[in-house]
Amino acid sequence: MVGGGQLARMTHEAGIPLGIKFKLLSDTPQDSAAQVVSEVVIGDYRDLDTLRDFARGCDVITFDHEHVPAEHLAALEADGVVVRPGRSALAHAQDKGVMRAKLDEIGVPSPRHRIVADPADAAAFAAEGDGFPIILKTVRGGYDGKGVWFVRSQADAEDAFKAGVAVLAEEKVDFSRELAANIVRSPHGQAVAYPVVESRQVDGVCDTVIAPAPELDDELAGQAQELALRIAKELDVVGHLAVELFQTRDGRILVNELAMRPHNSGHWTQDGAVTSQFANHVRAVLDLPLGDPRPRAKWTVMCNVLGGDYPDMYQAYLHCMARDPQLKIHMYGKDVKPGRKVGHVNTYGDDLDDVLERARHAADYLRGTIVE
Amino acid sequence: MVGGGQLARMTHEAGIPLGIKFKLLSDTPQDSAAQVVSEVVIGDYRDLDTLRDFARGCDVITFDHEHVPAEHLAALEADGVVVRPGRSALAHAQDKGVMRAKLDEIGVPSPRHRIVADPADAAAFAAEGDGFPIILKTVRGGYDGKGVWFVRSQADAEDAFKAGVAVLAEEKVDFSRELAANIVRSPHGQAVAYPVVESRQVDGVCDTVIAPAPELDDELAGQAQELALRIAKELDVVGHLAVELFQTRDGRILVNELAMRPHNSGHWTQDGAVTSQFANHVRAVLDLPLGDPRPRAKWTVMCNVLGGDYPDMYQAYLHCMARDPQLKIHMYGKDVKPGRKVGHVNTYGDDLDDVLERARHAADYLRGTIVE
Repeated sequence: MVGGGQLARMTHEAGIPLGIKFKLLSDTPQDSAAQVVSEVVIGDYRDLDTLRDFARGCDVITFDHEHVPAEHLAALEADGVVVRPGRSALAHAQDKGVMRAKLDEIGVPSPRHRIVADPADAAAFAAEGDGFPIILKTVRGGYDGKGVWFVRSQADAEDAFKAGVAVLAEEKVDFSRELAANIVRSPHGQAVAYPVVESRQVDGVCDTVIAPAPELDDELAGQAQELALRIAKELDVVGHLAVELFQTRDGRILVNELAMRPHNSGHWTQDGAVTSQFANHVRAVLDLPLGDPRPRAKWTVMCNVLGGDYPDMYQAYLHCMARDPQLKIHMYGKDVKPGRKVGHVNTYGDDLDDVLERARHAADYLRGTIVE
Repeated sequence: MVGGGQLARMTHEAGIPLGIKFKLLSDTPQDSAAQVVSEVVIGDYRDLDTLRDFARGCDVITFDHEHVPAEHLAALEADGVVVRPGRSALAHAQDKGVMRAKLDEIGVPSPRHRIVADPADAAAFAAEGDGFPIILKTVRGGYDGKGVWFVRSQADAEDAFKAGVAVLAEEKVDFSRELAANIVRSPHGQAVAYPVVESRQVDGVCDTVIAPAPELDDELAGQAQELALRIAKELDVVGHLAVELFQTRDGRILVNELAMRPHNSGHWTQDGAVTSQFANHVRAVLDLPLGDPRPRAKWTVMCNVLGGDYPDMYQAYLHCMARDPQLKIHMYGKDVKPGRKVGHVNTYGDDLDDVLERARHAADYLRGTIVE
């Protein structure tokens, strides 16, 4: 796996019972995954020679993030390295312009959008619809709210163009909530769909995921799952695909983002599903039969743990474990910095209010925003 | 953790979400746990200097097996190393004579027993009770049926004395089945009890574990749990304690063996309990609050996967995953040798017959004793 973040850490964890020999390419030995994996290569994923050396002896290469340059992926594939998901699929997760064009081509509903050249063009895009506000996104390099601008005027639009990356304009969707439809697909086309979840963002960062999405109409849930399965097939995705969706106030679903790797909206599966997204991602990229994606509890809630003002979470960690013996804590081994994702918690049970309260409490307590 | 076997492998797996920095002392880099842990020291646990070097920088030392010499444990404790479970507790898991004497002292029921000096003394022990057959065990070094003899005559008894280790004679208990009462205890005395399980042995090796033990009287189950909690307290055990029990035909329970580490009879907890034995062992030895030991399913069954005649299990592995998407496979990364424990499978559900059949089928198929 290329990339030493928490997704690689949790993928390794899920691969241990499968008997997988996991090799990691990590920026530093301190990275989240590098702390727990036996075979770690320290190197830069932007360097082709490093990638080539790393790939030697791997049956398959997969990714913790979307940032490996497309030309390097092409070179690896030309070398005969098995890359899953492959370069052509990953192009849609690496470039939002490519993604939108493809979704248009296959008839998947997206927010109104087009590439815009400059602030004046962004204003023109706004005028073509309901006017400002609109959303601007750099087509590459954004995540967790970075590379995304909420734009109320032409002057507001200037920042988005400063990086020198193409900018995609999208309508500001009048959504009632965000959903995610997560599926896993294997090279020979087996696929499994997880229940559609509700994802709540704070400041552009995933905060809470509820599985399944409460009061979601069965038909709309089925549509979302079918959409995700269709996208995976049309784009030839192998592994976990997260399709982030807007549920509009008039009852439609529109695709917001795609991620072709384990995803924050699937962390609940570690404790809430028969087979976790990480285990199924491993199974898919190795072309093993996929595991059952069904939930094990009526409700599962995931809350991200963000770093707070205090670097030492240890007392809070003890408190949360003592308060709730059913709490499932997942720490990433990262130094605590304000606002940084350093872990998540999962809770499950029959009573959604209780399950939500327990996860919310633990995440807030660990961050230090509440005491008791 | 000292010892690189599958128990260390699965303890590391369970420690990852807890954010634990896990360090391993392993005989070879090929050992089961050494394949998956970042920080591995290769060395001999029988060498005190190796242990001392290993212990440097560890907050606490725990064990994958009982074989670290007692004098080395004493030396580490004298150095100020935190050893959990401690030397005085471990003495009861390392020496069956010491264990029996202690259980007698605290009034815990055991099979009739005494140390015997030679084959003639073994015959005398038999004559003191109902005659042959009796069981002879070396007080140290036995596991998985090794170091245990089923003895029908004085001549039969000779093998047991060849190792030059003290020999414990025990009555052959007329048991209806074997049970295990597993508990976890932390240094400040918090303890949790898992449901009592039924353990089925084949040729002295654990084959199948059913959680909870079917048709076990609630009162007897409670007695077994209380017994295990009492033993843990009296012996000052920290971490996971497995108490292997005989259920006699006349409705009593007698202690067979103790293990002070994660144990084969607790592997079902990985997929069948809110908190696995491995996670709770880690929490206990680090004096973290313990997790909920309650079952997540009505029935969970574990079957060990033993090596068969074919070294390559890959096709069988694919078949089992495809046949049963709910099957939980746990492979140890070991070379397949006939009769060697190379993994286990867990299944769970509401219908015990179905859950048993699925686990049994997968274990037999992986071993190669059935085809379909």
